[in-house]
Amino acid sequence: MLTISQRGQEMPASPIRKLVPYAEAAKARGTKVYHLNIGQPDIETPKMVLDAVRNSDFKVLEYSHSAGNESYRRKLVNYYASVGIHVNHQQIIITTGGSEAIQFGFLACLDAGDELIIPEPFYANYNGFAVAAGVTVVPITSTIETGFALPPIADFEAKITPRTKAIVICNPNNPTGYLYSKEEMEQLKEIVLKHNLYLFSDEAYREFCYEGTQTSAMHLTGIDDHVIIMDTISKRYSACGGRIGAFVCKNQKVLDAVMKFAQARLSPPSFAQIAGEAAIDLPANYFDTTKAEYKSRRDLIVKRLNAMDGVFCPNPGGAFYAMAKLPIDDADVFCQWLLESYDYEGATVMLAPATGFYGTPGLGKKEVRLAYVLNLNDIDKAMDCLEHALKAYSKLIN
Amino acid sequence: MLTISQRGQEMPASPIRKLVPYAEAAKARGTKVYHLNIGQPDIETPKMVLDAVRNSDFKVLEYSHSAGNESYRRKLVNYYASVGIHVNHQQIIITTGGSEAIQFGFLACLDAGDELIIPEPFYANYNGFAVAAGVTVVPITSTIETGFALPPIADFEAKITPRTKAIVICNPNNPTGYLYSKEEMEQLKEIVLKHNLYLFSDEAYREFCYEGTQTSAMHLTGIDDHVIIMDTISKRYSACGGRIGAFVCKNQKVLDAVMKFAQARLSPPSFAQIAGEAAIDLPANYFDTTKAEYKSRRDLIVKRLNAMDGVFCPNPGGAFYAMAKLPIDDADVFCQWLLESYDYEGATVMLAPATGFYGTPGLGKKEVRLAYVLNLNDIDKAMDCLEHALKAYSKLIN
Repeated sequence: MLTISQRGQEMPASPIRKLVPYAEAAKARGTKVYHLNIGQPDIETPKMVLDAVRNSDFKVLEYSHSAGNESYRRKLVNYYASVGIHVNHQQIIITTGGSEAIQFGFLACLDAGDELIIPEPFYANYNGFAVAAGVTVVPITSTIETGFALPPIADFEAKITPRTKAIVICNPNNPTGYLYSKEEMEQLKEIVLKHNLYLFSDEAYREFCYEGTQTSAMHLTGIDDHVIIMDTISKRYSACGGRIGAFVCKNQKVLDAVMKFAQARLSPPSFAQIAGEAAIDLPANYFDTTKAEYKSRRDLIVKRLNAMDGVFCPNPGGAFYAMAKLPIDDADVFCQWLLESYDYEGATVMLAPATGFYGTPGLGKKEVRLAYVLNLNDIDKAMDCLEHALKAYSKLIN
Repeated sequence: MLTISQRGQEMPASPIRKLVPYAEAAKARGTKVYHLNIGQPDIETPKMVLDAVRNSDFKVLEYSHSAGNESYRRKLVNYYASVGIHVNHQQIIITTGGSEAIQFGFLACLDAGDELIIPEPFYANYNGFAVAAGVTVVPITSTIETGFALPPIADFEAKITPRTKAIVICNPNNPTGYLYSKEEMEQLKEIVLKHNLYLFSDEAYREFCYEGTQTSAMHLTGIDDHVIIMDTISKRYSACGGRIGAFVCKNQKVLDAVMKFAQARLSPPSFAQIAGEAAIDLPANYFDTTKAEYKSRRDLIVKRLNAMDGVFCPNPGGAFYAMAKLPIDDADVFCQWLLESYDYEGATVMLAPATGFYGTPGLGKKEVRLAYVLNLNDIDKAMDCLEHALKAYSKLIN
């Protein structure tokens, strides 16, 4: 039979990208669209990072080592040491974006039918990679009322079965912006050790912390064999299109298995490895500037949201996302309506409905995720638009 | 339990790369190694292709569309038309190398436990991607005596079960260099239609045909819904490190499913998409030069091999590989011995043992694959070395 596979059918469409056709139609009508829906930073990629590629002088665009260029991995050792993560270059495998690091981890550590616990709301593509790998995602609900803090350990215990193999944590979190504390990370360590689980730690937003600093899963002691860091240069250096990430791990058996998957796909992209390597030499204060910019945006967007009638937005400690509870009936309907039927002074706002970030059906229907990847002026205008839109929408549904 | 997944254990190590440590040791001893083991062309990447990236002037290295830049896909429509493949830009999804096109095809069309028929010897990484997807590869043996022609259709019929979902064909073939004829492709069409199978067609070496021209799976009429082309710029433009390929298909349901997997990994690499797009504008005679160069190399390597005592090398019609039967007991042992224990005038040769390209255990033990990716002078020296090595090895084993 000429059919689509079961996993091809089950594979979820991207909740972030599914509204794109409505946005395109709005633009075609001449409506300006403020994109707060996707984590594509507007921050310029550092010139020296792009120049490293532009000034390269090789003659053959060759495959690199399947683990990535050794020179890059050796420099990454220094980068990781600078954030308190102590690994050698053989414990780093360069991946095609953070996406591939996630895939490698799932494939090497989990079999079809295994269970993976993830606090929800979570980065929707974890679910996509889990479907591709035949793995079942078991969500544990965190709530907007607590600012999306780590759910009680009892909630994890209640969901652990003999098929549970791993927990995924994203810190600081996408989509909530929540920055897990050292105490929360220690709680995860206890449960990982008690039940002999892997701890997959997505640390894409490591540098973007506005209230304290990040506790990496590799700062935890005594669980070296359990921890896998899934990393990426995408957000760190505003280099999303490079598709360069890293799989970082101290468990030799896991590294050996991942290398076989890495060899099958030959190598990560060569051009962007040059960019990634150059980024290590950015001045130490590079993140100060971008962090200050993101912090101002966060402060503005949170203030503006909480000033709107019936809106609640907890103050996110990191990343560049905020989750807000809106006085609406259905976030999917509202976000589509914003693009299809609304404009304020010729503009509208594109948001990500939170439903796509929850594993439990029915949750997140009044919530949206906002990526503060626009400059302060645009954020202000987008918030003006949203404020007026909520009033107009309220009249429609009441 | 903290264990490696079953698929992580079953995943084969790359047969092409597993001898690398022995080659590194040989080089460390001061021995020159002629690399005929891997399809990394020495041909320079066209300057205008690299310059397109080096002269780019964007400020933010952004995600592209998950299907790849529309401008690139629209230009690819013209490229494909020039080789008799008529598709529109929405039937092309840019992938991260041909590798990802293979993965997408397997994930969208096949479920765990499904069977995939592939004439052996075959590109070893098909097996890797099959293991990752939980799919079973069913090999059908082609032999060096026939020059690796398509096995009789009866051999396919004998292996088809209710779980058979697809056939993979690579034309011209890696590792054998065999160029399937129009008649052979028509035979595949018949069996694909009769049993309602997908035909995955790897056409990475399309332009490199030295005896006639390639018959693409998309030249076959009446099987549009069945055909999936897995393509790449790696060999075509000597741009292996770009990691840019394409998934080309006219079956809308398959395209829709693949797009969901494509969205999950966000986008293909941005830098190399610029390179791929520039390559479409290469002068029409670009391939004449590279093809003439490869043809001279093929002629030389085949002549030299067949002139050696007890060696048989069929004349490959395409790609840049030759398979040779050697007067040896075990290709894996021989290839390792070449690197570990042999040199001729300070040099040795690295070959790929054919065992890694067969799915049936025990086959290919007297065969090796040679990639003619070195210049004529180096090929000549490598063949001198191999000729002497075979004599020395013969004394060891007899």
